[in-house]
Amino acid sequence: MTYHTLENGITAARGFVAAGIHCGIKMAKKDLAILLSEVPAVAAGVFTKNIVAAAPVVVDKVQLSRSTFIRAIVVNSGNANAATGERGMQDAWSMVKTTASALGVKAHEVLVSSTGVIGKFLPMEKIHAGIQDATGKLSRDCHRSSAEAIMTTDTFPKEYAVELSLKGTAIAIGGMAKGSGMIAPNMATMLAFVTTDACVSPAVLQHVLREASDRSFNRISVDGDTSTNDMVLLLANGAAGNPSLNSVSDPDYQVFYNALEHVLVYLSKMIVRDGEGATKFVEIRVTGAANEATADTAARSIANSNLVKTALHGEDANWGRILAAVGYSGIDFVPENVEISLGSIPILKKNFQIDFSEEEAKKVLTEKDITINVDLNQGNASASFWTCDLSKDYITINANYRT
Amino acid sequence: MTYHTLENGITAARGFVAAGIHCGIKMAKKDLAILLSEVPAVAAGVFTKNIVAAAPVVVDKVQLSRSTFIRAIVVNSGNANAATGERGMQDAWSMVKTTASALGVKAHEVLVSSTGVIGKFLPMEKIHAGIQDATGKLSRDCHRSSAEAIMTTDTFPKEYAVELSLKGTAIAIGGMAKGSGMIAPNMATMLAFVTTDACVSPAVLQHVLREASDRSFNRISVDGDTSTNDMVLLLANGAAGNPSLNSVSDPDYQVFYNALEHVLVYLSKMIVRDGEGATKFVEIRVTGAANEATADTAARSIANSNLVKTALHGEDANWGRILAAVGYSGIDFVPENVEISLGSIPILKKNFQIDFSEEEAKKVLTEKDITINVDLNQGNASASFWTCDLSKDYITINANYRT
Repeated sequence: MTYHTLENGITAARGFVAAGIHCGIKMAKKDLAILLSEVPAVAAGVFTKNIVAAAPVVVDKVQLSRSTFIRAIVVNSGNANAATGERGMQDAWSMVKTTASALGVKAHEVLVSSTGVIGKFLPMEKIHAGIQDATGKLSRDCHRSSAEAIMTTDTFPKEYAVELSLKGTAIAIGGMAKGSGMIAPNMATMLAFVTTDACVSPAVLQHVLREASDRSFNRISVDGDTSTNDMVLLLANGAAGNPSLNSVSDPDYQVFYNALEHVLVYLSKMIVRDGEGATKFVEIRVTGAANEATADTAARSIANSNLVKTALHGEDANWGRILAAVGYSGIDFVPENVEISLGSIPILKKNFQIDFSEEEAKKVLTEKDITINVDLNQGNASASFWTCDLSKDYITINANYRT
Repeated sequence: MTYHTLENGITAARGFVAAGIHCGIKMAKKDLAILLSEVPAVAAGVFTKNIVAAAPVVVDKVQLSRSTFIRAIVVNSGNANAATGERGMQDAWSMVKTTASALGVKAHEVLVSSTGVIGKFLPMEKIHAGIQDATGKLSRDCHRSSAEAIMTTDTFPKEYAVELSLKGTAIAIGGMAKGSGMIAPNMATMLAFVTTDACVSPAVLQHVLREASDRSFNRISVDGDTSTNDMVLLLANGAAGNPSLNSVSDPDYQVFYNALEHVLVYLSKMIVRDGEGATKFVEIRVTGAANEATADTAARSIANSNLVKTALHGEDANWGRILAAVGYSGIDFVPENVEISLGSIPILKKNFQIDFSEEEAKKVLTEKDITINVDLNQGNASASFWTCDLSKDYITINANYRT
């Protein structure tokens, strides 16, 4: 399925405006963004499972449990407001209230998000001033400055939007994301904010976001489950005027799901491409699995192997490391039945038959984009996972991140 | 507890002889070792859980299920005989039979082990000749050449032995190991062979080996569960003449257990110190846990975090990454109660109080040996895990291992 793409990222859907400004958390770069829906929007959220959840994660869970409708999201970068205790919670609530009052909306209609260094208190005076500043700049044109304002170690802003038709009504789905910058599934902070002008019921919106996130943000080597601050928020304001999507058995559900998954996968891939020190973009595709969970587990294990990632960096067709990573993934399979190819070059056939040209494999591996196909030959399910190589630059960047 | 150490490693215990020679699997270095017990020895083994188990792992499990008593172990390095299918199995059995016939013992009394490159057939002619050669050189003095013959990317041989007293009888426990050379828990190949002249019943020997391995080889960042070839073999030949240790409730059990754990931890630490590209030796000690499993899980998560490992390489007191790694480990705990120290310098106190001298922390971090203490303040259980930092040399070594 190909989609007609739109320019405006987070403001591609009707009825959304945004702003991204510099308020002084960072030295010079933009560090605060506000997103506003002109009418109350149904909201859904997916949050980190890390038990050390940052204050904004706790606040947003409370907000979403109290109100289904949200008007605005305020985001700062440069400081994660994580491991900041009681004072951090007060600061997060203060961001919510200040934003609500600046925008003239209710406090329970505002969500908050933070990313950056852990364990430092937010500079609240700067943030309050920044919220006022951003409020004055809200516009449909400011999608890119918003995408820039949520960046940390990202080297480019990440935004994407598409148009589709639901029962003849044109609707838009667009969003922005920030990469963790991390190429291993550790405490990567991954944020994504997505808007749509479709009319979707709260239960369906939460369901579709969870499903699509599991096949996108949770399938990159920046594990959405593991940072203190990770979140994906989706607002649907109904401005398109389509008949409300109220059931997962509505035929339109799959149409909407497919488009949302497409947008989230696109944003996910941008995050991987911007992985710290990454020189390769790698798709791990596991096919012939008994079920999707098996394929997912095998692909994840390969993608998270430091040995596979360093071999890819070294452009070495090391099928042994790939097979071994499947072997310790915990799935049940018959090693003799596994077939592995690099792009279109088979490097392992059934019964451990190895008969490939190292030259041809090398040619595939010198490309920037590499696909590893692993066929388990046990069923019809499949899953893709996206990752990058492990380079010396990763060490350099992360050895001195805090200082 | 301190022990009197002995010189002879794998041949420290009475009644064991060994040899390590070069047979031509590798270009020039030693690549084949034989260990022989002069009398049948009770044998116990702990093996990789990787579903892609190498041929020698399969063969040894069969051997141990058929016979409790073992006379000899034959080991080659340079080729793992893994992912080699039916022919690999034949080759492993052939190593067993050739060794049995060279030594004049029964075929069911011989175990086999391999380590090295995956997916290549063994050069059987060279190996058969090597077995004859090694048989002629068996001696109590050849412990070190044996330890050298099982090395792959190891930079030094690893052997250790101690003496202790069981009900007044002096017994010895000694062994040799090879490191995976890997500093992440991936497909590390870790081999260890341990001998004792104590008299121990088969059931007790298997139990004590499993327990001690779980607190040593399974607590280093070379995960014994994940390679295709990992194994730990323990032979007890009873040459010391002590009354047989037949029960885990015998007071001597704990005495023997402690000494065995001490030997296995010592060998484990040598493996970590020889981690590829390692510049730091790091002990992660989790205390105040509700139970040992919780402490183990938390310590393991910290030790396997690429972000913690790169921060250590960069000598950065990044407590946020340590706390976050506990947060995504899956254990239940209260983040506000956690206290973290580097050596004797507290870097995180309760309620996220951070008040330490970066200078003092830096001083601890510039040392080659670093201890990270994490107190969960929830109970009295603890666990230690040993790992090393993640350096650029790791990338260099692993990017082109196969070629």
